[in-house]
Amino acid sequence: MVKIGILGAGRIGKLHATNLQNSVSETKVVRIADPFMNDAMKEWAASIGVENITNNPDDVFNDPDVDAVFICSSTDTHADFIIKAAKAGKHIFCEKPIHTDISKIKEAIKAVEDANVKLQVGFVRRFDKNHKAVRDTVASGKLGKPYVVKVCSRDPEPPSIEYVKVSGGIFADMMIHDFDMVRYLSCSEVTEVSAIGACLVNPDIAKYDDVDTAIVTLKFANGAIGVIDNCRQATYGYDQRVEVHCEKGCVQDNNDLQNEAFISTAAGVESAKPTWFFLERYNDAFIEEEKEFAQAVINDTPVPVTGIDGLEPVRIAIAAKKSLETGLPVKLEDIEA
Amino acid sequence: MVKIGILGAGRIGKLHATNLQNSVSETKVVRIADPFMNDAMKEWAASIGVENITNNPDDVFNDPDVDAVFICSSTDTHADFIIKAAKAGKHIFCEKPIHTDISKIKEAIKAVEDANVKLQVGFVRRFDKNHKAVRDTVASGKLGKPYVVKVCSRDPEPPSIEYVKVSGGIFADMMIHDFDMVRYLSCSEVTEVSAIGACLVNPDIAKYDDVDTAIVTLKFANGAIGVIDNCRQATYGYDQRVEVHCEKGCVQDNNDLQNEAFISTAAGVESAKPTWFFLERYNDAFIEEEKEFAQAVINDTPVPVTGIDGLEPVRIAIAAKKSLETGLPVKLEDIEA
Amino acid sequence: MVKIGILGAGRIGKLHATNLQNSVSETKVVRIADPFMNDAMKEWAASIGVENITNNPDDVFNDPDVDAVFICSSTDTHADFIIKAAKAGKHIFCEKPIHTDISKIKEAIKAVEDANVKLQVGFVRRFDKNHKAVRDTVASGKLGKPYVVKVCSRDPEPPSIEYVKVSGGIFADMMIHDFDMVRYLSCSEVTEVSAIGACLVNPDIAKYDDVDTAIVTLKFANGAIGVIDNCRQATYGYDQRVEVHCEKGCVQDNNDLQNEAFISTAAGVESAKPTWFFLERYNDAFIEEEKEFAQAVINDTPVPVTGIDGLEPVRIAIAAKKSLETGLPVKLEDIEA
Amino acid sequence: MVKIGILGAGRIGKLHATNLQNSVSETKVVRIADPFMNDAMKEWAASIGVENITNNPDDVFNDPDVDAVFICSSTDTHADFIIKAAKAGKHIFCEKPIHTDISKIKEAIKAVEDANVKLQVGFVRRFDKNHKAVRDTVASGKLGKPYVVKVCSRDPEPPSIEYVKVSGGIFADMMIHDFDMVRYLSCSEVTEVSAIGACLVNPDIAKYDDVDTAIVTLKFANGAIGVIDNCRQATYGYDQRVEVHCEKGCVQDNNDLQNEAFISTAAGVESAKPTWFFLERYNDAFIEEEKEFAQAVINDTPVPVTGIDGLEPVRIAIAAKKSLETGLPVKLEDIEA
Repeated sequence: MVKIGILGAGRIGKLHATNLQNSVSETKVVRIADPFMNDAMKEWAASIGVENITNNPDDVFNDPDVDAVFICSSTDTHADFIIKAAKAGKHIFCEKPIHTDISKIKEAIKAVEDANVKLQVGFVRRFDKNHKAVRDTVASGKLGKPYVVKVCSRDPEPPSIEYVKVSGGIFADMMIHDFDMVRYLSCSEVTEVSAIGACLVNPDIAKYDDVDTAIVTLKFANGAIGVIDNCRQATYGYDQRVEVHCEKGCVQDNNDLQNEAFISTAAGVESAKPTWFFLERYNDAFIEEEKEFAQAVINDTPVPVTGIDGLEPVRIAIAAKKSLETGLPVKLEDIEA
Repeated sequence: MVKIGILGAGRIGKLHATNLQNSVSETKVVRIADPFMNDAMKEWAASIGVENITNNPDDVFNDPDVDAVFICSSTDTHADFIIKAAKAGKHIFCEKPIHTDISKIKEAIKAVEDANVKLQVGFVRRFDKNHKAVRDTVASGKLGKPYVVKVCSRDPEPPSIEYVKVSGGIFADMMIHDFDMVRYLSCSEVTEVSAIGACLVNPDIAKYDDVDTAIVTLKFANGAIGVIDNCRQATYGYDQRVEVHCEKGCVQDNNDLQNEAFISTAAGVESAKPTWFFLERYNDAFIEEEKEFAQAVINDTPVPVTGIDGLEPVRIAIAAKKSLETGLPVKLEDIEA
Repeated sequence: MVKIGILGAGRIGKLHATNLQNSVSETKVVRIADPFMNDAMKEWAASIGVENITNNPDDVFNDPDVDAVFICSSTDTHADFIIKAAKAGKHIFCEKPIHTDISKIKEAIKAVEDANVKLQVGFVRRFDKNHKAVRDTVASGKLGKPYVVKVCSRDPEPPSIEYVKVSGGIFADMMIHDFDMVRYLSCSEVTEVSAIGACLVNPDIAKYDDVDTAIVTLKFANGAIGVIDNCRQATYGYDQRVEVHCEKGCVQDNNDLQNEAFISTAAGVESAKPTWFFLERYNDAFIEEEKEFAQAVINDTPVPVTGIDGLEPVRIAIAAKKSLETGLPVKLEDIEA
Repeated sequence: MVKIGILGAGRIGKLHATNLQNSVSETKVVRIADPFMNDAMKEWAASIGVENITNNPDDVFNDPDVDAVFICSSTDTHADFIIKAAKAGKHIFCEKPIHTDISKIKEAIKAVEDANVKLQVGFVRRFDKNHKAVRDTVASGKLGKPYVVKVCSRDPEPPSIEYVKVSGGIFADMMIHDFDMVRYLSCSEVTEVSAIGACLVNPDIAKYDDVDTAIVTLKFANGAIGVIDNCRQATYGYDQRVEVHCEKGCVQDNNDLQNEAFISTAAGVESAKPTWFFLERYNDAFIEEEKEFAQAVINDTPVPVTGIDGLEPVRIAIAAKKSLETGLPVKLEDIEA
């Protein structure tokens, strides 16, 4: 049994805590820290069987009963919390991104290595059964060399302008998942990116030097080429499809649908839409990433998503932003590593 | 919070208990009874946070802390446990079938009525999101009158011959779910059935006056006609598809698949198989039926699957068996009601 | 080059003539006979390059230039035209059914055998690429023994009451195609049928002792069982699906759609309907059956659909009608052979 | 009836001639010219009912009986033949591309305008029922503004190296269809392109300054952005999919499959592959483009694919090639217009 301390009880922290208590038999949440700890939060914690709550994260780091922490606090705290947790000898699951600053990410990774603890980064889409089946097919080698890697990712609704202001931009905030995904699917590293984008969903986003629709092409170290397209709005729900075209064939996936019923009438054939958003689509994937983290801790085996896996998408996002700004392709070797 | 006592901690009892603890926020399991209570079972109960365990079902009926019972014991005990629970003023969720004997089912229903408690019967497939979407479409009336109701249901693997001997036959044991389903989908009652069948999967089944593959045609009170086909073996997994062809269109569903990936090669296009069996396919449906039961208890509203819904499929199964034996159609009015 | 005489230039005769001229390189239409030959028909014939037209069928039988005839005239003339053609030494393609009277069919078959000419019956659905792929899979043996054979067949619109009066009923007129299909798919013979039916689309049909919606269950000589469901109306178009569940797997097909585009919006996902009716769905199948007939004539090889294949579905239709009337199963051995 | 002269009786010329004779009732082929006219070609012409054959194209231009010509000869002759035909007052259907040299295309278009004849360019994919349904949805405006236009196009097999040497490169030879398609789907004009590519299928192609796998991103005048991916090899057949993501929804299409049957076994679910290549996939589209050309001539209405539609994809291809060579985005305004 891995005893867990949760840092940050916002939406994603609550999700992890509830899953860890109810759906991951290998873990037990023993302490939850949140700077805004209040009565409602206490009640929620009690409802999932957690009594030790605090507004001071150090209570978690200092708790000898805690084996591992889940860092679900705001992005700017991630790297420092990783360092503190590592120094305290705790294993670490950290939501993405580790940080927006590369040197800070590297500092966190170094602290983890020095402390010889586990660090898993929360790129949850790798644990989706559809995407995983695509990756496993590529990794098996049965289709030969990858030629073209494609990812389409669209959110159902754009975030608020307030969120856009602080999000770091579409590449750092939204496409970062897809930068991780293309590394996962290609079984290779990105060497160059080229970006185009536009404000089509909401022209106000342009005021913050951001776009809401973007296409990024990529070159990979293994010779493959790729493309990601993102849009902040898809009225029909969360659109998450990947494809790898290879030497001997092509592997791709469709969206999970809300249900498998369909109605045929004189007007046409209607079927259900994709699941609404990430909580619906990646529900099982969250549980799977938590289980694999617990097993890595218990069995002292490598985590499935490492610190380097946390670093590289940030570098690619920086390159993509630079490409969008300059209109030129950007080589990854020109981004701090 | 509805406090639950579990009667019978076999596979289905464990499933309900775990769901009620972990996935149904409105319920809390407070006591579990099983005649074969042993250390392993105690350990499992502890793991889901239940300390009160017993091998005596009366401990559950007599526990004033228990609001409702889940009857998950062997079929022959269902009706008596319903009667005991009703007399003790507990609400009741009972796994299907209530009994194989119609007068015994009626006795149980009467006890429930006399005690004015809730009784919900475990026809879980009604809570499957796909089948429910089909039913909701029919019930909405937007496709007009139903003409043809079709259900295809195949298990991945045949049960053991030991099980077949005591199962009551394919109609009572397997197709009973589909008899419930056609009532649910047609929004009507079955008036006549006609059955054919064969031993194709395992000829040994014939020794026990049973078949492993069967087709039953049905007439409904609303004028519609229907057909169910069952087979004890489908190498590709659990096949569960329904269809209602109506005046203004047709609504049907496909199986849930293990994943949505597919591989295109020179050899063809390969996609994933249906989910393996009912634990995979109806996993969310079990949670949904438990939630709806809890809400009916809390809000004192009607349960979604009543005692009559438990009775009718048993009558249809008896009629189907008689039709298979005689080679003649059987009217439901000729079966004890 | 097989020189063809066409008997009957109604809808189906025109279809065959046009295909034979334009799409079957092995054939040339040299003469067309129709009792209602008029200027419009002459103009049509000229447009496909046929100058020899007549209102006298004997002109075709007596034409030494004609190698083979296509009998596309009204059903009551089929058997006599087969006999005349056989006596004249012409090979014969005959639209289904040969006749509604079994002794007349047998007389026609005997004439064909005596004259040692080819006779192919127009069960065009065997040449549909989807159904053929299902049949080929069963016939290959790779799925082992067939267990359950299912055919769903629905017309987009009911025929006129005038047509219903003379059609011979739903089994003789509509389901006869499916009786052929189950023989084709099962690679076996039907031994017993049991029918239910209802007038749901148009209650007036009941006045003519007919139904517009019917389900027939079947037993096969190889042990398999099966079911066909028919409805005279499907608002969404022509619904033609088949399925064979076997020992080692299941093979089935979907409808051809009008196109493969689909639209995802907040309201749902809309895709195209099935092709509208048999002219759209079986367009390529007509050409394929014509080509295979031409090749059988040229190479003196067996035709793909024989006289016996013309006879058996008529016998099954008679049995189904009897079952519907009596409410009892009917054995095929009790129908004149 | 439009009387047609065919220029060039290679694969595509034969295809058009056969369709025009057999499947387009509005046309009649009266003369065929090919520099390599020989006995086999004469025999083929006779088989489709054409007796007037020649090795001199001027025989076609000078034939007063010819209303319109189909230019199916080698690419380098297209522009000159357009000019000759226009001067002879013939309407013109010309296979793509008109020429690889922009000034030559403009000269041809001017000749057509001066002669006031029709010119339709053979971008056949616009007539594919799937792509057309996507375009019609966008053009209807019901999905609002287009945001992202995507085209995936893969050939089943790479061409020979001999062909690659003279093809003009992947953009001029293969992706040119997709440059037309994005104009058609977006209902807008391309303003900027950026290309990446690689030799993955056959490294020898690199010797000829070409690639066999390429991704091009595009900006459109209406604000939309887009991407095309091409690969010279897809072992599973011809992959032709398009998608337009819009303000209110997304419209896309799937490939036509060889058939709609599928087999479910313990090993997985197998379905048919896409149709093999353009002759299978675009068979009906060829007939449709021919019919629409005939109707434009007969009714004196605009042709569906104009000279400008022939010019623009060539400009985009030149821009894409330049982008691949320089690694920089290229604006369309910098390409000769």
